[in-house]
Amino acid sequence: MKAVIVFPGKIGVEVRDVDIRESLEKGQVKIKSLFTGICGTDRGIVNGKITFAYPQKGLDFLILGHEGLGRVEEVGEGVKTLKKGDYVVPVVRRGCGVCLNCKLGRQDFCETGKFVEAGIRGKNGFMREEFIDEEIWLVKVPGSLKDFAVLTEPLSNVVKTIDELLFVQKRMVWTCEDSTFGCRNAVIIGSGPIGIFFSMLLSTLDFNTYIVNKRDPYPTEAYVAEKIGATFINSSKERDKIPEVDLIVDTSGYPSAFIPLMSKMKHNSVLVLFGTVEGEKAEITSDLITSVVEKNILIFGSVNASKRDFEEALRYLSIWKDRYPDILEKMITSKVPVEKAPEVLLRKPIGEIKTVIQW
Amino acid sequence: MKAVIVFPGKIGVEVRDVDIRESLEKGQVKIKSLFTGICGTDRGIVNGKITFAYPQKGLDFLILGHEGLGRVEEVGEGVKTLKKGDYVVPVVRRGCGVCLNCKLGRQDFCETGKFVEAGIRGKNGFMREEFIDEEIWLVKVPGSLKDFAVLTEPLSNVVKTIDELLFVQKRMVWTCEDSTFGCRNAVIIGSGPIGIFFSMLLSTLDFNTYIVNKRDPYPTEAYVAEKIGATFINSSKERDKIPEVDLIVDTSGYPSAFIPLMSKMKHNSVLVLFGTVEGEKAEITSDLITSVVEKNILIFGSVNASKRDFEEALRYLSIWKDRYPDILEKMITSKVPVEKAPEVLLRKPIGEIKTVIQW
Amino acid sequence: MKAVIVFPGKIGVEVRDVDIRESLEKGQVKIKSLFTGICGTDRGIVNGKITFAYPQKGLDFLILGHEGLGRVEEVGEGVKTLKKGDYVVPVVRRGCGVCLNCKLGRQDFCETGKFVEAGIRGKNGFMREEFIDEEIWLVKVPGSLKDFAVLTEPLSNVVKTIDELLFVQKRMVWTCEDSTFGCRNAVIIGSGPIGIFFSMLLSTLDFNTYIVNKRDPYPTEAYVAEKIGATFINSSKERDKIPEVDLIVDTSGYPSAFIPLMSKMKHNSVLVLFGTVEGEKAEITSDLITSVVEKNILIFGSVNASKRDFEEALRYLSIWKDRYPDILEKMITSKVPVEKAPEVLLRKPIGEIKTVIQW
Amino acid sequence: MKAVIVFPGKIGVEVRDVDIRESLEKGQVKIKSLFTGICGTDRGIVNGKITFAYPQKGLDFLILGHEGLGRVEEVGEGVKTLKKGDYVVPVVRRGCGVCLNCKLGRQDFCETGKFVEAGIRGKNGFMREEFIDEEIWLVKVPGSLKDFAVLTEPLSNVVKTIDELLFVQKRMVWTCEDSTFGCRNAVIIGSGPIGIFFSMLLSTLDFNTYIVNKRDPYPTEAYVAEKIGATFINSSKERDKIPEVDLIVDTSGYPSAFIPLMSKMKHNSVLVLFGTVEGEKAEITSDLITSVVEKNILIFGSVNASKRDFEEALRYLSIWKDRYPDILEKMITSKVPVEKAPEVLLRKPIGEIKTVIQW
Repeated sequence: MKAVIVFPGKIGVEVRDVDIRESLEKGQVKIKSLFTGICGTDRGIVNGKITFAYPQKGLDFLILGHEGLGRVEEVGEGVKTLKKGDYVVPVVRRGCGVCLNCKLGRQDFCETGKFVEAGIRGKNGFMREEFIDEEIWLVKVPGSLKDFAVLTEPLSNVVKTIDELLFVQKRMVWTCEDSTFGCRNAVIIGSGPIGIFFSMLLSTLDFNTYIVNKRDPYPTEAYVAEKIGATFINSSKERDKIPEVDLIVDTSGYPSAFIPLMSKMKHNSVLVLFGTVEGEKAEITSDLITSVVEKNILIFGSVNASKRDFEEALRYLSIWKDRYPDILEKMITSKVPVEKAPEVLLRKPIGEIKTVIQW
Repeated sequence: MKAVIVFPGKIGVEVRDVDIRESLEKGQVKIKSLFTGICGTDRGIVNGKITFAYPQKGLDFLILGHEGLGRVEEVGEGVKTLKKGDYVVPVVRRGCGVCLNCKLGRQDFCETGKFVEAGIRGKNGFMREEFIDEEIWLVKVPGSLKDFAVLTEPLSNVVKTIDELLFVQKRMVWTCEDSTFGCRNAVIIGSGPIGIFFSMLLSTLDFNTYIVNKRDPYPTEAYVAEKIGATFINSSKERDKIPEVDLIVDTSGYPSAFIPLMSKMKHNSVLVLFGTVEGEKAEITSDLITSVVEKNILIFGSVNASKRDFEEALRYLSIWKDRYPDILEKMITSKVPVEKAPEVLLRKPIGEIKTVIQW
Repeated sequence: MKAVIVFPGKIGVEVRDVDIRESLEKGQVKIKSLFTGICGTDRGIVNGKITFAYPQKGLDFLILGHEGLGRVEEVGEGVKTLKKGDYVVPVVRRGCGVCLNCKLGRQDFCETGKFVEAGIRGKNGFMREEFIDEEIWLVKVPGSLKDFAVLTEPLSNVVKTIDELLFVQKRMVWTCEDSTFGCRNAVIIGSGPIGIFFSMLLSTLDFNTYIVNKRDPYPTEAYVAEKIGATFINSSKERDKIPEVDLIVDTSGYPSAFIPLMSKMKHNSVLVLFGTVEGEKAEITSDLITSVVEKNILIFGSVNASKRDFEEALRYLSIWKDRYPDILEKMITSKVPVEKAPEVLLRKPIGEIKTVIQW
Repeated sequence: MKAVIVFPGKIGVEVRDVDIRESLEKGQVKIKSLFTGICGTDRGIVNGKITFAYPQKGLDFLILGHEGLGRVEEVGEGVKTLKKGDYVVPVVRRGCGVCLNCKLGRQDFCETGKFVEAGIRGKNGFMREEFIDEEIWLVKVPGSLKDFAVLTEPLSNVVKTIDELLFVQKRMVWTCEDSTFGCRNAVIIGSGPIGIFFSMLLSTLDFNTYIVNKRDPYPTEAYVAEKIGATFINSSKERDKIPEVDLIVDTSGYPSAFIPLMSKMKHNSVLVLFGTVEGEKAEITSDLITSVVEKNILIFGSVNASKRDFEEALRYLSIWKDRYPDILEKMITSKVPVEKAPEVLLRKPIGEIKTVIQW
C-alpha cells in the first residue's frame, strides 16, 4: 500500500509502496484511512529539524502521520465497541507499560519517557492507506463529525492542557462571582491551528480571549476572532491593548514572545507553555521571579493527550460544528492527494491553517 | 401582561393579566419570553403537593415557571455581555448573600437555605410575557440552540450532579485502563426527561448506560435508548438483565426502587439520589450498611445548579444537536399557548416528555 | 515459634508452636514482634461471628493479628529503607495486583475484592514471635513512638476516612471564613477506640466534636473528652444536647443509632459509615431521602487504609504524644503475655479500650 | 509600652515607648508578647532594601514584627475559643475583604493585592509588649509548644507551599507504588530556616531530601540533615551528587542557583519558587522551555499562609518536638531582650538560624 515515509536522520520524504504485513489479531481493528493531518512536527521530521524521530523496531524507515482519521474495515475477535463502518481516530502515544501513569492510560504523563508515538517515535504512523490497531487505542467518532474529525488529534492536546489548567487553578478560587470564568482574561500567543483551538476553547468556557501575534490577522484569523468573540492584537503595534491577564498560553515557543507579557500577569495567574522552538535565548531577572513568588503565579508545560482528551476533543468539535460550522470548514485550508504529500510536507502552503491528505 | 400564577397554599392555577411594575435598572436586562418548560415541581405546586412554595415579598400570588428561555428586548446601563436580540436562559436560584457558597455563585450549595428560587420560593418565575433580570444571572444562549434551549434548566441540574459525581470519584482511581469511563456501568432509574438526560450525558461520557423502569419503554424511550447506545430494562420482568453497577442514579425518589438494586453495587460505586416523592417507606438492613462500608460505597443527594452548569448544559445541547438532532426534537412533546397552561399544569399529557409554553 | 491461631469456620483460638518456614528473600525483612493489638474483628473470627476469614493457601489454620508492631531483626538483600533495630508496623491488606487502585498502592480501594489481609483473609497475621515481610509493606516507626505505635493500624483506618471526607467535601466550600473547620460540628457515634480516634482527629482538625453514646461516659472517656475539648453526650437522656451537625461518623454499625440523628444534618453535611454489625434492621422514609437530595447530603462507607495512611497515623501519634501523652497511655488498657491471648480474645476485658499482646 | 519601630522609607530601627491606644472591643483579645521572631523581611525593611513597607493609616511609623507568639491577657465580649492564659500566634496577612479568596479566609491568595500585613504593610506588627487582635485571626497554641511556637509563622508559609504542591501534583499520579512519596527526590536550595523547614517537612512526608548550598554545611545544618535523613550537598564541589529530581524548592531567589539545576528535572517534576532577591539576571534558552513542555514540568511561586496553615504548622511542630526535640531547640539560636533588637535587626548574628526577641 501507499505510505508517506521518512528515513529518520535524513532530510526528505517520499511516497512509497510499502509492504507492512500485519495480521488482524484478537482485539485488533483494520482501518481504512480517510484523512491524515499535517503539522509542524511532521515538517520538522521531514526537514531534519526534529531529531528525536526514529523508526519502528526492525525497520529503517518510518511511516509519518499522527493526525489520523479512518473507517473500520474489519474487526478482530473479541472487539466489542467498534464495528465495520465506524469512524475512528487513533491515539498517538502508547505508554511505557511500566510507570503508574501509563498503567492508568495517562501516557501523556509518562514518567519514564519510554513511550512510542505513531508517526514520530518508534511506531509507524497513519499516512498510509490502511492500518491495524488495538481497539483500546481507537476513539470512536460520531458520524456527524466525519468531515472534521481529522482535527481531533491536535485539538486533544489543547483539551488536555485546559483540563490541567482548570485542575491546578483549584489551588484557590479562580471562578468568578457568578461561578463562571467570565471575569478572566486569557491571552493566546500565536494564531496557528493550535492558537485558534486554544482561543475557541477558552471562549467557549467564557474567558475574555485575546489572540496575540506580531502581525495583523489574516482574513481567516480575523473572521474566527470576530465570530468567537475574541480580540486579535498585533503586538508589534498595539501592545498597549493587551490587558492585565489571568492566563497566558504560549503556542510560539519563543521566550522573547512570552517573557515581556509576564509583566501583565495578575495575582494567581498562569502561564502555559505549549510551543517549542530551537536556538532561542532570553534573559530573566530576579524581579520577574519575585513577581512569580509574590503573586502566586504558576507556569506549566503541557504535551500530548490521552484517550479521554480525544473524546473531549470530539465533544468540542460537535459544539463548534453546531455553533460555528464555518470556522471548522475554514480551518481545513486544503485537502491534497497522497501524491502531493511531499510537496506540502516540505513547504507549508501560504495561508495554511490545516492541510490534510485525503485518501 | 399575561402570566401563569398560583396562590401558594391553594390548589389551582390561572392565567391572569398581572401588573408587575419593574423598571430597568443599571445592570438589568428586559427579556421577552419565548418558551417556558413545565415540570413536576410546577405541577406539585399547582396540585398542592409541594408545600414549600411561597410568593415574592409583598405579593399574595406567585408567578410560576423556572424553565425559561427568552430574547433580550432592552439592556440597562452598564450591561456588557448581552445586547438586544440575544437569547438567554435565567438561573433559577438566587443566593442567600451570606454563606460562602453563595458568595462564590454556588448557590446550589447554599448552606443557610435562605435562597429564593424563581417560580418556586419567594421570587416570581418566568411564565409571563416578559421579565426583568440581572445580567449576572442570565446565561447567553448561542443562536443555534434557540429551539432547544428551554431544556437548559432541567439539564443544568443533571450537569451539576455529574460534575459532582466525577469530582467525588477522584477519591480513588475510577477511570479505566484507557483513561475513559468505558468500563463503567451506569443504571438510571426512571425514564422521564431527567432520566433521559442522565442517560444521554453518561452515554456521551462513555459509560455503559442502562435505563431501568418497571414497564416496557414508550416508543420514544426505546428510540432514544437505541440511538444513544443505552439498554432499556423493564425491571418488573427482566431484573436479571441489570448488571453489576458502578453507578446508580435514582430519578424516581422511591426507596423501593433503588434499595433492591444496591445489592448490584460494585466496590467504589456510587448511588446518586435525585428524585423525591412523598409518603414512602422502606426497610434497610445492617447487611446493606456493611456492604456500603466494606465496598467504599458513596451516596449523595443532588439539587439545583449554578450558572456554570447552565453553560455546560448548553454545551451538551450543542453536542446532542450535532449528534442526535432528532432526540432533542422528540423531547419537546408539545408546545402550548399560555391559555392552555392550566390544562397541562393540572394534568400531565399522555406521552409527555417535556411540555412547554410557547409565548 | 509461638503463634495465636484459629481454624476459620471453627469457634475458638489457641496458642501453638507453629513451624512456618520462611526464608529471607531479596527485598524482605525479618521482624521480631513487640506488641500486637486485639480488636473486634479478631474476636469476631474467634467467636465465629465473622465468616469471611480463611487461611493462607496451603494451610488449614490462620495466624491471627493485624495490628502489629515489631523490630527489625535482619534485612534481606537490596533492602534500603530499613535496618536492624528499626521499629516497623506492617500494612494489613495486600492488593489484588490487577485493579488500578491496587497498582497504585491504594489496595484500600481494591476493586476486585481479591486482596488478602494479614490475620484475616488468606494471609497469616502478626500474632507470632516473628515474621518475614516485604520491605515495601513495612512502615518505619520513629523510635519516639515505640510505646504507642501498636495503635497505628486502627488509627490508619480513621486517617483514611478523614482524608476521604476532606477530599469529597471539596465538592463545595466547606471550610469556614477563617479557612479552618472551626465552624463545623462533628458527631461521633460510639466511644470505643475507633470513636475516640475519630474524636481526637477531628478535634485536632478544629471541628467542634461531640461523642455520642447511649450511656454515661466511662471515666477514661470523660477524661479524654474533656482533654481534647469534646463534649460527651448520653443520647438516651440528653438527646436535645446534640446540635445541628455538619458531620456524623457512625462507628456503631447500628442503623437505629444513626438514622434518627440524620434529622440534625445541615446542608452539605456528611454521614460516614464506619461500623458494621449483623442482623439489624431499620426503616427509612422518602422524607429522609428528600432531605438528602434537597440538602446535598453525602454518605460514604470507609474501610481499610494504605501505607500513606499508616504514615499519617504515625504523625498523629506524634502530635498527640506531644499534646496529650496521658491519653495515649490510657488507651492501652492492658498488656498481656501471649499465653493470656485466648482469654482476652474470647472475652473483652471490662473497661478495655485497647488490649495488646506483649511479646 | 516598648515597641520596635521603623519609619518606612528611612533606614534604621529603634526601640521606643509608643502610646497605641487600643481598647478591647467585642470579639477582640489582648495579648502579652512572649517571643517575636526576626527574619530577612524585617532586616530588609530596617536596611531599606524592602521598599513596600508602609505604616498603619494615620501613623508615620510602623511597629515591626510578624512572627509573634503571646499569651492571652484578657478577652473581649463574645470571645469563645480563647481564654486568659492561652498561648496564641497571630496570622500576619489580613484580607482585602473584596476578592473571593479573602472572603474564604484565603488571603494568602488575595487577588487585589489590597491586603495589609502586620509588621510589614499598613498594620502595626508584634514587636511590642502587648497588642489587641481579633479572635478570628489568632491561632491557639497547645501549651506543649510554647517554647517553639514562635516558629509557627515562618513554618506556616512552608506548609502552605507544600499543601499547594501536593494539590497541583494530583494533575497526574505522583505517589509511588506503595502510595507514599518514598520514590521522590526533593532538592532544597538554601539552608536557612526556611530551607530547613522545607527539608524537615519533605522528609517527614517520606521524600528523599537533598539540601543544596554552595558551601559546606555549618555544624547545625549537618546535624539536622543527618537527623532527618537528608543529604547535604555542597554544590560548588559536589554537583554530581545532585540526583535527578522530582522537586526543586528554591529558597534563595537566585536564578543562577536554580536554573542550572533544572536540567536534572524529571518528567512531571515541579520547581517551587519561594525566595526573592534583587538585581539578579540569568539567561534561559528555548531548550529549557522545550524540556518544560515535553516533560510536563510545573513551576509555581508561593507566598504567605492562611490560618489553616498556621494550625498545620503547629501540628508539624508537635510532630518534630516528639521526633527531633533537639532540632527545634537548635533552630532558635538566640533569644535577646528587646533592647538588643536593633543590633540583631541591623546585622544578622553569625551562625543564626532564628533569632527571637524575648519579652
